[in-house]
Amino acid sequence: DLPLTLIAGPCQLESRQHAFDMAGALKELTAELGIGFVYKTSYDKANRTSLGATRGAGLDAALPVFADLRATLGVPVLTDVHTEEQCAVVSEVVDVLQIPAFLCRQTDLLVAAARTGKVVNVKKGQFLAPWDMKNVVAKVTGSGNPNVLVTERGVSFGYNTLVSDMRALPVMAEIGAPVIFDATHSVQQPGGQGGSSGGERRFVETLARAAVAVGVAGVFIETHDDPDNSTSSDGPNMIRLADMRGLLERLMAFDRVAKGADRP
Amino acid sequence: DLPLTLIAGPCQLESRQHAFDMAGALKELTAELGIGFVYKTSYDKANRTSLGATRGAGLDAALPVFADLRATLGVPVLTDVHTEEQCAVVSEVVDVLQIPAFLCRQTDLLVAAARTGKVVNVKKGQFLAPWDMKNVVAKVTGSGNPNVLVTERGVSFGYNTLVSDMRALPVMAEIGAPVIFDATHSVQQPGGQGGSSGGERRFVETLARAAVAVGVAGVFIETHDDPDNSTSSDGPNMIRLADMRGLLERLMAFDRVAKGADRP
Amino acid sequence: DLPLTLIAGPCQLESRQHAFDMAGALKELTAELGIGFVYKTSYDKANRTSLGATRGAGLDAALPVFADLRATLGVPVLTDVHTEEQCAVVSEVVDVLQIPAFLCRQTDLLVAAARTGKVVNVKKGQFLAPWDMKNVVAKVTGSGNPNVLVTERGVSFGYNTLVSDMRALPVMAEIGAPVIFDATHSVQQPGGQGGSSGGERRFVETLARAAVAVGVAGVFIETHDDPDNSTSSDGPNMIRLADMRGLLERLMAFDRVAKGADRP
Amino acid sequence: DLPLTLIAGPCQLESRQHAFDMAGALKELTAELGIGFVYKTSYDKANRTSLGATRGAGLDAALPVFADLRATLGVPVLTDVHTEEQCAVVSEVVDVLQIPAFLCRQTDLLVAAARTGKVVNVKKGQFLAPWDMKNVVAKVTGSGNPNVLVTERGVSFGYNTLVSDMRALPVMAEIGAPVIFDATHSVQQPGGQGGSSGGERRFVETLARAAVAVGVAGVFIETHDDPDNSTSSDGPNMIRLADMRGLLERLMAFDRVAKGADRP
Repeated sequence: DLPLTLIAGPCQLESRQHAFDMAGALKELTAELGIGFVYKTSYDKANRTSLGATRGAGLDAALPVFADLRATLGVPVLTDVHTEEQCAVVSEVVDVLQIPAFLCRQTDLLVAAARTGKVVNVKKGQFLAPWDMKNVVAKVTGSGNPNVLVTERGVSFGYNTLVSDMRALPVMAEIGAPVIFDATHSVQQPGGQGGSSGGERRFVETLARAAVAVGVAGVFIETHDDPDNSTSSDGPNMIRLADMRGLLERLMAFDRVAKGADRP
Repeated sequence: DLPLTLIAGPCQLESRQHAFDMAGALKELTAELGIGFVYKTSYDKANRTSLGATRGAGLDAALPVFADLRATLGVPVLTDVHTEEQCAVVSEVVDVLQIPAFLCRQTDLLVAAARTGKVVNVKKGQFLAPWDMKNVVAKVTGSGNPNVLVTERGVSFGYNTLVSDMRALPVMAEIGAPVIFDATHSVQQPGGQGGSSGGERRFVETLARAAVAVGVAGVFIETHDDPDNSTSSDGPNMIRLADMRGLLERLMAFDRVAKGADRP
Repeated sequence: DLPLTLIAGPCQLESRQHAFDMAGALKELTAELGIGFVYKTSYDKANRTSLGATRGAGLDAALPVFADLRATLGVPVLTDVHTEEQCAVVSEVVDVLQIPAFLCRQTDLLVAAARTGKVVNVKKGQFLAPWDMKNVVAKVTGSGNPNVLVTERGVSFGYNTLVSDMRALPVMAEIGAPVIFDATHSVQQPGGQGGSSGGERRFVETLARAAVAVGVAGVFIETHDDPDNSTSSDGPNMIRLADMRGLLERLMAFDRVAKGADRP
Repeated sequence: DLPLTLIAGPCQLESRQHAFDMAGALKELTAELGIGFVYKTSYDKANRTSLGATRGAGLDAALPVFADLRATLGVPVLTDVHTEEQCAVVSEVVDVLQIPAFLCRQTDLLVAAARTGKVVNVKKGQFLAPWDMKNVVAKVTGSGNPNVLVTERGVSFGYNTLVSDMRALPVMAEIGAPVIFDATHSVQQPGGQGGSSGGERRFVETLARAAVAVGVAGVFIETHDDPDNSTSSDGPNMIRLADMRGLLERLMAFDRVAKGADRP
């Protein structure tokens, strides 16, 4: 049971400078706290609620930034892929390909991601039972790639609401893939603001503490220096960068207890 | 309020002969009963539960069959599209492009489908509230294509279960797009058989009657001459072709009452 | 398959005059339309959201009114019971004892109601699967009373929301007890107005049409001459008395189709 | 933020000797570990799934045992009440009156329990949103009794399943009443074994760890020396007495972190 890893970063790649500022600050903080770190950012939000919503920097603008972040700062980078074609291109400049929750059953995408040989992080669909991720993981491992992560990010609970079932964490751990808890999207209120999704930032720590106490390989937390003024879809869910140190210190204290204790 | 339209056919395109037999039988039956008819079939099941599951005939084999069905039998054809690239190609030989439920928020796919000028039928995601389909429809109409259908096919209700909220039908009707009720996938039990999805065929008529009484533009019912021996993912949900006449006669009787009455 | 029965009346007994006015109007209307009729009213709302909410006329004031309604108008009367002690007392002046949904698993209450020999109408709990009503019905029949009705009134779907699963109707019909659909409480939004429950009256007809098309023995619809100015908890859900004729005519048309057709 | 309190004991009062053995063992263990302790047991299971299921010792047999447990062992005792009449009688021999989840909105029962002056522990209904417990608590405090506990025990999630929403804990804490997490009934599968409820004991620790990390005043855990051979409805959910020490040591370690840290 290795200590907790943090997957963090802003929702979207906003600019080269912003990415370097955020990744640098998070690298420094996690190194100081002894937490593994993967920098997360998206070049395209392919499923925004509204047609007119900001989509992100785009693939061509983002790839060189991703490459430079890795080369200059030495941080591993994670980003989403949405089509088979993107997998090979993106895999050249990142360490982890992430499959969005809505796409977690698209066989061709999973196979294309698997074939890059990179780590594949599959988010569990909001419509999927935790035991059904076994079939999803098998699509990746059955394509010759054993490096799969599975991420819990909430399950549909009535309309415009998700609930986090903590039982999903040990159930998915039995599949054999490291389990990540996405505390940001778990507090999302899908479509909850009419033309965009809402969320409740105050519950990010609630759910992250719960998941770490149950026992997870990592947590996924979007963060931003000024979330309420970001153009991201996840503004209402992102943690202020200034609040990350306290949050991580508390999570690490729970992680030490959880990893020292027997697994439930 | 036009009479009910039926979107029907087998889950997958199995062979040219099978397609002609099914489409021919359904065309004859619906003509006799005075029901509008669109032939539905899929060339690829892109999100089967398991990697090893049968995927279907494939695009290249299917396109000429679709073209011939339309030319020979004069029936409109509907099929699923899964990527932007498929939209233009498929649109040349079909009348309706269908967006699968898991993909209903993928902006690029919706825009590509819209730009073909064909009718676009968007299935509501199992994770989506009916009022949130307004944003989905706007992605199509905002791309210059006013010909959108929206389809209810159940919403997540706990694990491995869907429930059909009949209130969704009038809520979606207010968006302005004709509403279809998919009675086949509404009785699906996602992942309910471990390596594949289960379903309860006996409730297809239950839910179809309810939806028609509430008032819909059409119903979507997968049918097969021998569903229990088909290789389709929807074998447990498909209605036997021999049972379609009785089912449609009953639905038409409800439709006449519903269309004569004031809308709820 | 007998024609539809209507269980209807205002949420609460407001006054003797109001009860006679409502029961008289409904008796006349249902007789004209050829619908069976049971007058529903409550003498006590034992589970209002707030402590300060109006509770109703009380048992002592209500019993003589119930007796007079039966004697004078000749209408059967249904009311709720909440404790074992109430069963025997209330049974002397009503025809049907109704077990509230929250109390549907309280064994002593079910047994006490059963032992009165009156018809017992058990509302399915918002937390209960339809197949689990088998055990509830057996508590009544196992106490020597075969006259049980079961009522669907929605199942919990996320917070402050219910959903009506139309599959519940044939599932409960298999238990052997006549099935009633409560269209009023199925559109309730429990606790949805903070200190009281909300509701969406516009969906009463939606859900009632669906249920009648699927096939039920009866529908339960609360009605009031002025629902928006009533003090009842179900004001937002009650149908205006003036709208009942049109609603019932439409439901009867669906019922004739449903009862003429084979059951799903 | 006081250290964790444990409410524990077997589901049912089985015999005087069994009660003394269990209460004695738990008293000793919790004293050693520095955990507050309340002994929980029921004299009557008023809402068993089936009519023929074991109901418990009954009120008359249980009251003297409760009195002796308090007098001899000096442990506070908690038990369920189901009717107004029981409140006064039971309150003479116990310290905490517990309102079952199904009954949490029965105003008369809440008021009668409040008027005893004893601590009242209200279990949140499986059909209730956490913010709606505000009205429930107000029924007790509005009756002059400020000593209210609220207990989370899962919320309906599809059929025969509950889910534990960890966000409910801070939401209910804002009401001002100490929050208890019932780890036993949260893993219940209501009606899940046909004629009785099922459950998954292996998730008791999963959920208890999560709740303690989020921060609660106490945990409720049913335990038995031989749960699989008990006649209780909660056999599948009860923790073996022999496993309690390890479980409590782990929970206390999380509690120390949670209480030292800022509340989420």
